[in-house]
Amino acid sequence: MEKVKILLDESDIPRQWYNLAADLPTPLLPPLGPDGNPVSPDMLAPVFPMNLIEQEVSAERWIDIPEEILNILYRWRPAPLRRAVYLEQHLDTPARIYFKDESMSPPGSHKPNTAVAQAWYNKQFGIEKLTTETGAGQWGSALAFACQLIGLECKVFMVRISFDQKPFRKVMMQVWGANCIASPSSETNAGRKVLEEMPDTPGSLGIAISEAIEAAVTDPTGKTRYSLGSVLNHVLLHQTIIGLEAKKQLKKIGEKPDIIIGCAGGGSNFAGLSFPFVADKINGADITIIPVEPTACPTMTRAPFVYDFGDTACTTPLLAMHSLGHAFVPPPIHAGGLRYHGMAPLVCQAIVEGLLEPRSYHQLESYNAAITWARTEGFIAAPETSQALAAVIDEAKKAKEEGKEKVILFNYSGHGLMDLSGYDAFLSGKLVDYELPDKELQKYLKDLENLPKAEMRKSGKW
Amino acid sequence: MEKVKILLDESDIPRQWYNLAADLPTPLLPPLGPDGNPVSPDMLAPVFPMNLIEQEVSAERWIDIPEEILNILYRWRPAPLRRAVYLEQHLDTPARIYFKDESMSPPGSHKPNTAVAQAWYNKQFGIEKLTTETGAGQWGSALAFACQLIGLECKVFMVRISFDQKPFRKVMMQVWGANCIASPSSETNAGRKVLEEMPDTPGSLGIAISEAIEAAVTDPTGKTRYSLGSVLNHVLLHQTIIGLEAKKQLKKIGEKPDIIIGCAGGGSNFAGLSFPFVADKINGADITIIPVEPTACPTMTRAPFVYDFGDTACTTPLLAMHSLGHAFVPPPIHAGGLRYHGMAPLVCQAIVEGLLEPRSYHQLESYNAAITWARTEGFIAAPETSQALAAVIDEAKKAKEEGKEKVILFNYSGHGLMDLSGYDAFLSGKLVDYELPDKELQKYLKDLENLPKAEMRKSGKW
Repeated sequence: MEKVKILLDESDIPRQWYNLAADLPTPLLPPLGPDGNPVSPDMLAPVFPMNLIEQEVSAERWIDIPEEILNILYRWRPAPLRRAVYLEQHLDTPARIYFKDESMSPPGSHKPNTAVAQAWYNKQFGIEKLTTETGAGQWGSALAFACQLIGLECKVFMVRISFDQKPFRKVMMQVWGANCIASPSSETNAGRKVLEEMPDTPGSLGIAISEAIEAAVTDPTGKTRYSLGSVLNHVLLHQTIIGLEAKKQLKKIGEKPDIIIGCAGGGSNFAGLSFPFVADKINGADITIIPVEPTACPTMTRAPFVYDFGDTACTTPLLAMHSLGHAFVPPPIHAGGLRYHGMAPLVCQAIVEGLLEPRSYHQLESYNAAITWARTEGFIAAPETSQALAAVIDEAKKAKEEGKEKVILFNYSGHGLMDLSGYDAFLSGKLVDYELPDKELQKYLKDLENLPKAEMRKSGKW
Repeated sequence: MEKVKILLDESDIPRQWYNLAADLPTPLLPPLGPDGNPVSPDMLAPVFPMNLIEQEVSAERWIDIPEEILNILYRWRPAPLRRAVYLEQHLDTPARIYFKDESMSPPGSHKPNTAVAQAWYNKQFGIEKLTTETGAGQWGSALAFACQLIGLECKVFMVRISFDQKPFRKVMMQVWGANCIASPSSETNAGRKVLEEMPDTPGSLGIAISEAIEAAVTDPTGKTRYSLGSVLNHVLLHQTIIGLEAKKQLKKIGEKPDIIIGCAGGGSNFAGLSFPFVADKINGADITIIPVEPTACPTMTRAPFVYDFGDTACTTPLLAMHSLGHAFVPPPIHAGGLRYHGMAPLVCQAIVEGLLEPRSYHQLESYNAAITWARTEGFIAAPETSQALAAVIDEAKKAKEEGKEKVILFNYSGHGLMDLSGYDAFLSGKLVDYELPDKELQKYLKDLENLPKAEMRKSGKW
């Protein structure tokens, strides 16, 4: 019997984060303000603390992880690297499948890796309270957890429909001392405006973002900031501890990955695992790196690389990214964490460079993969993670067809214990697939015609 | 910073279970049939496979764990031993608090340790299907998980009120391929009888046990058996891997426990952690060993040591145990896994011997402890586990008062992610405590007057 867990001692935890911006062959296109000029760090100061803004714009390759942050991460890190021997046996594949298990954190996903770091830097900067938005609740509960342990107040604007449908996520946040309210709320101008116009709206991530930012920047004490759970450079930076640990673990057993897979909504769990290996690829390693998205929200696989707003209400700076258009409302797939119109600029530039090979899967195929997973490995995956599982199973089957002993590494970004309603719908045959009609996509992209163009040349190396 | 995780390599997993029956100073009182005579192994054969019956009656000290069972347990075992340094800091206690983390198994508790073993032995014996009952769903989902991985059909009779209130536990079982139905059902004589008399009954564990046993013994193929998640000797035996791992882990860091704590409903998680240390106590070690139960269901702390039935319908053999009477219906506390009128005979004989010091806590105090736990250690505990946490915090405070560097070890038997409704009720002030009036207790105990008496002398050593 092969070993199924490769563990690292606490003393082997990585002590620096890896910043891909330092190694991308083409420099990162900067965020732009409404005037089309690059946003200066000062302009972000009402929203984020300066120490995180510095990380956001940093071109340093390695950034030290403060000891106090590590002391909190030790609760569940280093995270196990596991080998999926039971899935391998079931598929009768010559591939060796490894996964980084991020589901072991108290909130159940990779999200606390950055939530803890962001809360800590805000605290250091003298901030007393963080606001954020959450859709399905994975990010909101991670930030609630981090703020509780670090001693910050936390206010979460949760999309109304999720607030009503997933009451237990709200309870989790309350257990960790956070104040979670339904969005749109009557506490902000943005929320009141929507409620007046559409009192019965189910809410949206776009509205919740507007509320959370407004609540942060209008706090008269000046001691409140906003926190985002994906997309931005500093968020992806904090997640690279995943890939850095995985590298050490694979080295311990003498393995090198041929294929790396992660699901991508805003891009943070995918980037966290893959960026340290993207660096190897830039330096010549032969690795196939696959971000996976839902076919229903095909940002990387069908949307152009453009400048677009990060939110529906057009209040954020313009980011250079693949975007379906800021007005795009993804269909109600269960992988709520992947329902985002854009994608992290760092991930997108790596795509334009040809370093990544994005792929999309329908939700029915993803749930099929998740059921195979649960019935072989025994773990119940988050709906987002199931998208990665579909690609893993495909690649393992391909290795069998080719008769090749490939090493597949993927990110098991979270468990699905808080998302069993999706499994229920799948098992009772109530789930359907969605495909975005090209006409509809073109309609959303029209909104971008008057925005600055994102122009980046590929270095053409890959 | 102290290390917060003490890990064992897979190669260090214990390869034998420990059987306390071999070391109890007084021999175990045998189960009795309706005629008052000891039950023979043959009489149990329609209910359990003979290889498990042999374990049930075994007096061997060590029983080998088959390699195939270990291969399944490796998914989450060896389980981490963790140190609760953040709780220690919060309490400012000189005590060092360690906990065995059984919440990391796919179903989220210690239950799969025996579910896997039971499913495996049944499969070996040629059995094709297992039936069981479940209350809150923790045991049912563990057996569903085990049967799926081992290749058995699984049918779970889930108490109607839980079936309706906790639909996600049912979905978990379905993900693992089990058939979960509400009890009372129309599929058994026992169920139909109850439905005729009380069509709107919320069901009970007693009824569900009767249905599950009937479904097993009446299967005309003879290939179905029944499985129980606690109380019996072989179930406790399978759980001793917890304490045996903990011993190795403590040895690794040069620690010896002064106090051992576990919550106890049927007794299996408590026994699993503590029995290997009870052996040390029998051999002279100075350890305080505390099983904790809800004040609302005070089996160990207020009930006499008697012969009583294991189920409400009086269909099981008579077991020598502390019992509140088989007709006792525990109040609706959220720690559903601790709502049982009896207690494992092995635990009870150790109590009579003076080896254990049982204690009870109210649920409000337990939830208070769980909130302290979540806000320091960051993990959300099962309501059952919270009872143990209340005792841990008390003992850590006592160590501070006494200025003693005590080592406390407890069993973190499961997470509370599927039980957040209890936290919701607590946080919104809707929970109440229950105390069993003595008059009511005496009423239930009257049912036992005509049953054989359990007579055991203490050896008087402790």
